[in-house]
Amino acid sequence: MSLNSFGHLFRVTTWGESHGPALGATVDGCPPGVEIDAAAIQHWLDRRKPGQSKFTTQRREPDEVEILSGVFEGQTTGTPIQLMIRNTDQRSKDYGDIVEKFRPGHADITYWQKYGIRDYRGGGRSSARETAARVAAGGVARAALATLAPGLRITGYMVQMGPHAIDRGRFDWDQIEQNPFWVPDAQAAEDWASYLDGLRKDGNSVGAVVEVVARGVPAGLGAPIYGKLDTDLAAAMMSINAVKGVEIGEGMAAAALTGTENADEIFMGNDGQPVFSSNHAGGILGGISTGQDVVVRFAVKPTSSILTPRRTITRSGAATEIVTKGRHDPCVGIRAVPVGEAMMACVLLDHLLLHRGQIGENRGRIG
Amino acid sequence: MSLNSFGHLFRVTTWGESHGPALGATVDGCPPGVEIDAAAIQHWLDRRKPGQSKFTTQRREPDEVEILSGVFEGQTTGTPIQLMIRNTDQRSKDYGDIVEKFRPGHADITYWQKYGIRDYRGGGRSSARETAARVAAGGVARAALATLAPGLRITGYMVQMGPHAIDRGRFDWDQIEQNPFWVPDAQAAEDWASYLDGLRKDGNSVGAVVEVVARGVPAGLGAPIYGKLDTDLAAAMMSINAVKGVEIGEGMAAAALTGTENADEIFMGNDGQPVFSSNHAGGILGGISTGQDVVVRFAVKPTSSILTPRRTITRSGAATEIVTKGRHDPCVGIRAVPVGEAMMACVLLDHLLLHRGQIGENRGRIG
Amino acid sequence: MSLNSFGHLFRVTTWGESHGPALGATVDGCPPGVEIDAAAIQHWLDRRKPGQSKFTTQRREPDEVEILSGVFEGQTTGTPIQLMIRNTDQRSKDYGDIVEKFRPGHADITYWQKYGIRDYRGGGRSSARETAARVAAGGVARAALATLAPGLRITGYMVQMGPHAIDRGRFDWDQIEQNPFWVPDAQAAEDWASYLDGLRKDGNSVGAVVEVVARGVPAGLGAPIYGKLDTDLAAAMMSINAVKGVEIGEGMAAAALTGTENADEIFMGNDGQPVFSSNHAGGILGGISTGQDVVVRFAVKPTSSILTPRRTITRSGAATEIVTKGRHDPCVGIRAVPVGEAMMACVLLDHLLLHRGQIGENRGRIG
Amino acid sequence: MSLNSFGHLFRVTTWGESHGPALGATVDGCPPGVEIDAAAIQHWLDRRKPGQSKFTTQRREPDEVEILSGVFEGQTTGTPIQLMIRNTDQRSKDYGDIVEKFRPGHADITYWQKYGIRDYRGGGRSSARETAARVAAGGVARAALATLAPGLRITGYMVQMGPHAIDRGRFDWDQIEQNPFWVPDAQAAEDWASYLDGLRKDGNSVGAVVEVVARGVPAGLGAPIYGKLDTDLAAAMMSINAVKGVEIGEGMAAAALTGTENADEIFMGNDGQPVFSSNHAGGILGGISTGQDVVVRFAVKPTSSILTPRRTITRSGAATEIVTKGRHDPCVGIRAVPVGEAMMACVLLDHLLLHRGQIGENRGRIG
Repeated sequence: MSLNSFGHLFRVTTWGESHGPALGATVDGCPPGVEIDAAAIQHWLDRRKPGQSKFTTQRREPDEVEILSGVFEGQTTGTPIQLMIRNTDQRSKDYGDIVEKFRPGHADITYWQKYGIRDYRGGGRSSARETAARVAAGGVARAALATLAPGLRITGYMVQMGPHAIDRGRFDWDQIEQNPFWVPDAQAAEDWASYLDGLRKDGNSVGAVVEVVARGVPAGLGAPIYGKLDTDLAAAMMSINAVKGVEIGEGMAAAALTGTENADEIFMGNDGQPVFSSNHAGGILGGISTGQDVVVRFAVKPTSSILTPRRTITRSGAATEIVTKGRHDPCVGIRAVPVGEAMMACVLLDHLLLHRGQIGENRGRIG
Repeated sequence: MSLNSFGHLFRVTTWGESHGPALGATVDGCPPGVEIDAAAIQHWLDRRKPGQSKFTTQRREPDEVEILSGVFEGQTTGTPIQLMIRNTDQRSKDYGDIVEKFRPGHADITYWQKYGIRDYRGGGRSSARETAARVAAGGVARAALATLAPGLRITGYMVQMGPHAIDRGRFDWDQIEQNPFWVPDAQAAEDWASYLDGLRKDGNSVGAVVEVVARGVPAGLGAPIYGKLDTDLAAAMMSINAVKGVEIGEGMAAAALTGTENADEIFMGNDGQPVFSSNHAGGILGGISTGQDVVVRFAVKPTSSILTPRRTITRSGAATEIVTKGRHDPCVGIRAVPVGEAMMACVLLDHLLLHRGQIGENRGRIG
Repeated sequence: MSLNSFGHLFRVTTWGESHGPALGATVDGCPPGVEIDAAAIQHWLDRRKPGQSKFTTQRREPDEVEILSGVFEGQTTGTPIQLMIRNTDQRSKDYGDIVEKFRPGHADITYWQKYGIRDYRGGGRSSARETAARVAAGGVARAALATLAPGLRITGYMVQMGPHAIDRGRFDWDQIEQNPFWVPDAQAAEDWASYLDGLRKDGNSVGAVVEVVARGVPAGLGAPIYGKLDTDLAAAMMSINAVKGVEIGEGMAAAALTGTENADEIFMGNDGQPVFSSNHAGGILGGISTGQDVVVRFAVKPTSSILTPRRTITRSGAATEIVTKGRHDPCVGIRAVPVGEAMMACVLLDHLLLHRGQIGENRGRIG
Repeated sequence: MSLNSFGHLFRVTTWGESHGPALGATVDGCPPGVEIDAAAIQHWLDRRKPGQSKFTTQRREPDEVEILSGVFEGQTTGTPIQLMIRNTDQRSKDYGDIVEKFRPGHADITYWQKYGIRDYRGGGRSSARETAARVAAGGVARAALATLAPGLRITGYMVQMGPHAIDRGRFDWDQIEQNPFWVPDAQAAEDWASYLDGLRKDGNSVGAVVEVVARGVPAGLGAPIYGKLDTDLAAAMMSINAVKGVEIGEGMAAAALTGTENADEIFMGNDGQPVFSSNHAGGILGGISTGQDVVVRFAVKPTSSILTPRRTITRSGAATEIVTKGRHDPCVGIRAVPVGEAMMACVLLDHLLLHRGQIGENRGRIG
C-alpha cells in the first residue's frame, strides 16, 4: 500500500525531490526478456525535458537516466528496474523567498499542514520534476507493450490552451510532432505561439487540455469494479501535478446528451471484431476496453508561479505578498503531454498483465 | 490487490450481481467503538432506493441491509463488517432478450470479450445495483467520521440535467432535500421535472452532472504522490457506473484561466486557520486538503437502456436490433447523488486514518 | 491493504465471528469458467467440520456453505465469489464466564488491549471457527487448480501429536484417509487414539505437527524477493490459529546440517525435467518452485481451553481463576489439517496466476 | 502489490543485483520529523558488512549508503527515502563457471525456470547481498521507533550453529557484542570458533539458528486475521535468503506440550500492566502483542557454495560437476543476525503505524 506507487502488477514507485541529489522510479513487475537500454528510455525523457523551446522553463536539466538494476545484457530480467536521474541544476537563489512564504496555488501550505516540515527547495516532492520519473517508467512500459501488444500506439497532444481549443475539422496526426505544443492543428500552433508569447512577457500563465489516445488496444482490458480501466486512468491522470479534471470519451459533455444520441451502435467488422458507429464511450464500457481507441483528456491549471504579486501568509501566519521569480513554464500543459502518454502506457501494460494473470491469453470470442 | 476493493486502511470490497441471491460489501479497517446499527445504514440506502419518485426506476427493491459481522452490542469491534442485501425483485422476463444480444452502451459485450462468460441477468456484476453496496459502506464511513471529524458534512446534489444547468445565483442548500432531484435550485427542480417527464414518455434518457461537497474537512488529508486526495476521489467517482468525467474545484474550466485569475490568495483567519480568497483548487493543493470545502463533480452519461431501437450484434456476431424494455431510470444521475456522497465519505475516512497512521494527531501549525 | 485478506491476484477476505449470525469468505480474482458448486466446496468443509469423531469438539455445526455471488450456471464468472456459512449452534451458556475473565493462551486479553472492545462470545473473531471460511475458499482454489494445473495434488496429514512423532519408515499415503488423525502411519493412529483419549478424559489438551505436501507443482512459481513462495506459505500457515512454527523442507533441522549434507544434487530426468538427489529444499529455491514436492510443516500449540483451573485476571484487573468449560478439541492439530491444505491451495493458485500475469505460459527451458 | 516490497504503511521496496551498479531500498511511509542521517544507517550496515572476521566472506564491500531523497536538514519529511549502496567489488573471475552451470542449493535453476533469463553474476537478484538494503531500511525503522516507542529494544543473536546449541543457563546479554557470532554464551563462542575453523578449512559450511527478541513492545500491535504480528514476522524472516524455518515463542516445540504446560498464566503487575507466569506465546496472542518480549527464531541452512564437488546440470541439460570457488561465508547465520533485527524493526514500526491509523493512541485499559 505504498502511497508513492501506482499500478497493480506493473508497479511503479517514484521517489525524490526537485532539488535533492536525485530522483527516480523503482519499476517492479516488468516481464522478463524485454529489450531495453538507457537510450530507449532517454528518448522519452527528452520529450519532457525543460528548455526545448522558449515556451517551456529555461531551467537546464539534462535529465539523464541511469539504469541501476533489473536489466542484464540489454534485457529485463523480471526483477525491479531502478531508474535514477541526478539533479544537476539547483540554483539556490531560486528558493530564497519561499522558505518563509506559502506560494498560492502550490503545495507549500498543505505539505506544511500535513507534515509539519517541508523541503521548500523548488517545491520539494510536490515539484513537477517528479514527472520525469513517470516518463522514465513509461519508457519501460512502452518497451514491454511493443512486445506484448505490437499494434498498440499511444499519442498525446494538446487540444486547448487557455480559451483557445483546436478545430477538430483540422485535426492532423502528422502535425503533432511539427510544433512545440504537440497540437494536431497547424493553425492553432501559430495562434497559440503568439498568444502564449504575450502571456509569457506579462509573467502570466495559462491552463490547457491534453488528450491522450491509445490505438490498437486489445478488447477485454480492465478489472471491474474498482480496477476498471477508466478508474485507473482517471487516477493516473489526476495524480499528475496541476491536473483538475479528467474525461473519458465524451467526458463531461456526456451529461448534455440523450440516450439516443449517446449510444455507440455495434456492428460486426470484416475481421471478426466488433465495430462501433461512434465512440462516445472512449473505448471503455463497464470499465473494460472495447477494442476502440481509448480516449482520455485532462485539464491542467495555469502555472501558479507568476510574476504578478499575490497575497499570502508566512509560516508564522503574518500577511505578506509573494512574486514567484525563477524560470517557470507559462503553460505546464505542454510538458504534461509526454507525462500523460507515460501514464497511459503504464496503465495499459498493467491491465494487460492483470488480464493475462486472471484469464490467460484467451478471450471471449464473438461469432 | 483485490480488484473489487477500494481504500487503503478503510477498505471496502463489494460483491454480488444484480439478479443473484444477494449483494453486499465487506468493510475492513473500520475503527472500533463506532456506534452503528442496521437502521443507521438503512437511512442512507433508502435515499438511493428505486421507486422513490416517478423519475426513478419502478423496480421494487426493499434494499434491506443485514449486518452479519463486525458489530457487537451496537458498536464496531474493529473486525470486518459484512453488509448483505438480499435481491428480492428478479423478474425473469426483464432479461429474455439480452441473453443473446449485446446492449449498446452496456458492459454486455466487454464482459463477454474479457471473461468469455457473463451473467446477463439485469447486467450481472456491471449493474448499477452494485452501488447499493457502496451506499451501505458509506453509511459505516459516515458513522466513523461522526466520531473522528465531528464538524465534517458531506452533501451531494445535481447541478446539471441534460443541457440544463442550475443557476448558481439561486443556490440554496435547503432546497436539496425538497425535490426528487436533490437540486439546490427550486426553479431548476420545476423545469427539470417537466423536461424529464417528456424524455421518460419518449422512452429516452439523459445525462447529468452531480456535485459533492465536503465541508469541515481537516487540513492535511491526502497522501502524495499516488494516494493524493484528489487522485483517490477521481478514482472513486470514475468507478461509479456511467461516470465519464470527474472534476476537482475549477475542473476542466481551469484550462481556460490564467495564473492571475486562478490564484487562491491566502490570509490568516481569526481562528488561527488560513482562509482563502477563492476556491478554484476545490480544497486540495498538491493532493492534500487545505481545510477549504472539498468540491468534486462528476458527469453521468444518459442511461443506455432506452426504448428507441438500436443496432447491435448477437453473441454469434449476427446483425440485429435491440430495444431495452424493463423499468429503467430516465436519468441515473438522480440516484448517483447518494452514491457520490458515499464514495466521498469512504475516501475521507480512509485518508483520515492514513494521516493518523503516518503522522498521528498532530498537524504542522501555522503561527 | 485489507488486513483480513490474503493473496495477491487470488485474494481471499474472510469475515465473521464465532457466534455472530454468519461468517464467510469473499473470494476475488478467481479465473472465469471454473466448474464449481456448493457441493464441491461442501466436500472440503465437511472434512474440518466438528464432531466427526470423539477426538474433535462435539459442537454441532452443519457448516453449510451458500454461494451468494460470482457463480453463474455452475461456472465462475470472474467476479467476486461470496461464500457464506450461517452460525447455527450458539449455546449462550458456553460463554457466561469469559465475559469478565481473560482466558490464558487465548486472544481475549490482546483483543481487549488493542480494540478496547471485544465480542467475547466463543472467542469472537479470534475463534478457530474462522478457518471454516478458509476451507471454503480453498475449495474454490482447488477447483481452479484442477483446470490450471491438472497434475497437482495437495495432501495434508499429521506427523506428530504431543511427543509422539510418526515413523517415516511406515509412511503410507493410503492410511491418511483411514483414521481420525489423517496420519499416514497405521501404528501411530492406534497409539495416538489411546494417548489422546487419556488427555481428553483429564480435560487436558496437546499440540501437534501437521505436514502439507503439494505434488505436481510446476517449476517457476514464486515471486522473489517478498512474494516468495515459501514466504507466502509461511505467512499463510502462521496465520492459522494456534500455529507457532512453520518449516519448509528440512526446516529448523537445516541448522544442524553441513553444506555437503544439505545439497540437493541436480540431474536431468528422462522427461527433460530436472530431478534432484534429495529434497532438503522442500521444493523451493530462492523462493521459486523447483518442480519437486513442495513440503510445509507447522506446529500447532495445545488447545488453551482446558478443564484444569488456570490463574488469570478480570477486565477490571482483579486476580481470579478460570476453567474453560464447553466443548473443545483436545488436539486442534487434527482439524488444522484441512485448513493447512486449503491455505496451500490458495497460495499455489495465487502464484500460478501471478506467474501467468508477469511471464505468461512459457517457462525458461533447460536443454 | 509490488512483489519486491514488504510492509503495509511502512513500506520497503528493495532493488538491485549482486554485481550490478548498485542496490538499495525505497522506503515509503516513514513518519516525518525523524532525526536521521547516513551515519545512523551506516552503523547498522557495518554490522552485516562482509570481512568483519575470518568467519565471514572476505569479499570487500564498503557498503556505504547514500540517502538520495526523503531527508531534509537531518529529518525525514514523510516522503519516500531512497537508500542506495554502490557495488564496488565485482571480481569477474568469481562467476566464470556459473554462467552455464546451476549451483545446487542456489536459485540459479529456478530463476532460469521462471524467467528464462538470469543475471548469473554473483547470484544476481537472489544473492544475500540484497539483505544490505534490508539492513539500511531497518536503520530507518529503528530511528522512527526511537521516537515512537522509546522503550523498545531489538536484539538478535545466534542460539545454534550446526549441532551445537547454546546453554540457556549461561545466557548473558553482554556477551552478544563480545564475539564474532553474536552469541550470548561465552563458552559457545569459544567452541564455535574452533568448530567453524575446521569447516572453513574443509571448504564446507554449516547452518544456524538465529533468535531475535524485541523488549518493550507495546501491547496491542498486530492486525488479525491476515496481518497478524506473527504472520508478518514469519513472512519477514522466511523471506531472508537461506531461511527454512521460523518459530514464535515455543515454536515447533509447542507441539510436544500439553495445555496445562503451555498456559501462560496472567497476573496484574504493579504498574497496572498484566504480567505473565511464562512466555510460551513469544509475546503474541491471536496475532496481537501482549506486552511481553516478542521472541522469533529462524533457521538458516548451510551456505550452498562449498568447495566439495557437487553433481549438477548445465543450462543445456548436460550432466556435470561444480565446485563453487570464490569467497563465501562458512556460516551465513552470522551475518543473518543484523538482517533479522532489521526485519523485526520494520515489522514493529509498520504495526505501530497500522495500530495508530485504525485505533489512534488509545488502548483498551485493564482495571
